[in-house]
Amino acid sequence: MQLTPAPIARLIDELSRLPGIGPKTASRLTFYLLRSPVEQAAALAKAIGQLHAEVTMCSKCFNITEVEPCLVCRNENRDHSIICVVEEPLDVMAIERTRDYQGVYHVLHGVIAPAEGVGPEDLKIAELVQRIQQDSRVREVIVATNPNLEGEATAMYMARQLQNAKVKITRLARGLPVGGDLEYADEITLSRALSGRSEI
Amino acid sequence: MQLTPAPIARLIDELSRLPGIGPKTASRLTFYLLRSPVEQAAALAKAIGQLHAEVTMCSKCFNITEVEPCLVCRNENRDHSIICVVEEPLDVMAIERTRDYQGVYHVLHGVIAPAEGVGPEDLKIAELVQRIQQDSRVREVIVATNPNLEGEATAMYMARQLQNAKVKITRLARGLPVGGDLEYADEITLSRALSGRSEI
Repeated sequence: MQLTPAPIARLIDELSRLPGIGPKTASRLTFYLLRSPVEQAAALAKAIGQLHAEVTMCSKCFNITEVEPCLVCRNENRDHSIICVVEEPLDVMAIERTRDYQGVYHVLHGVIAPAEGVGPEDLKIAELVQRIQQDSRVREVIVATNPNLEGEATAMYMARQLQNAKVKITRLARGLPVGGDLEYADEITLSRALSGRSEI
Repeated sequence: MQLTPAPIARLIDELSRLPGIGPKTASRLTFYLLRSPVEQAAALAKAIGQLHAEVTMCSKCFNITEVEPCLVCRNENRDHSIICVVEEPLDVMAIERTRDYQGVYHVLHGVIAPAEGVGPEDLKIAELVQRIQQDSRVREVIVATNPNLEGEATAMYMARQLQNAKVKITRLARGLPVGGDLEYADEITLSRALSGRSEI
């Protein structure tokens, strides 16, 4: 006999589809929501329901935004001569948190991954090339894709696409993470840290 | 400058209020929902929104249900002479999964925990006493609260409340978990397993 009421089974099912949430966590969350005030569940439902309706992509940098163009692209106090290219909107948030970057962004929305069927045409790379051609202010493109296989391949591909554009192409430094321990660093990171060493 | 669009910040905030979900997981889930089809987010929002409206408590056993009384309480094929008392609706689901129990249930909706300000009057204990007084079929009450401090205290309290009722009061067996390893069992579990030993 199926004892679980349908609305509960339905919510457990929907929550289980989220990444990193299995059936056990999903049912724990469901029963938590059931015990919590109806207002909390309503607020969560509303926030999820409005997400797609209220958030769009900036037509210039393809970051997520509520306004068009986005707050960075429309801000004339930012340095529009430097474009930082990242994989995901979350990466923009990470770089903004450093408070060290004053340039603008370009979000690729992914990375070249042939195994998962993602090619360059699925990313906003053509849009980046076009953007640089049309905006004469651009002097430097910082490629800030992740320092892994796919990120490196995407960086190489973009560098080739931009080789005729008159812009400097740079990559984020690779090296030991701050607070890390030399003893536990992997060989590749350590050799990158050696070759990228700087004078004190 | 706050770059995160308000609908995203709002959803991250709401998700962070769920147990076991921190700000990082909340933002990962938010961006996952943003990338996934609008239908998936809508289905999740609907499932959360309808939860409280469609699920109520059975007036007899206080388990969650869509119908009144619940499917177990209205089922005359179940053994109404045995009541299994559990802390939460999730415990009912766990016992049902064994397919070994044919009796009915009583859900306390918590456990006596003075440190958290939960007293016996916050639980469905008085309702259990009344239910047993009114239903002459009841012969046995299986106390299936968790085998920890609060669960044991609640079991003792209930046993005292029911000492004048003409029902047998039993407790789930304590012992080694099946598939467990004697070497790693704690002393209390092992001594319970010894004292509760049975003939082969």
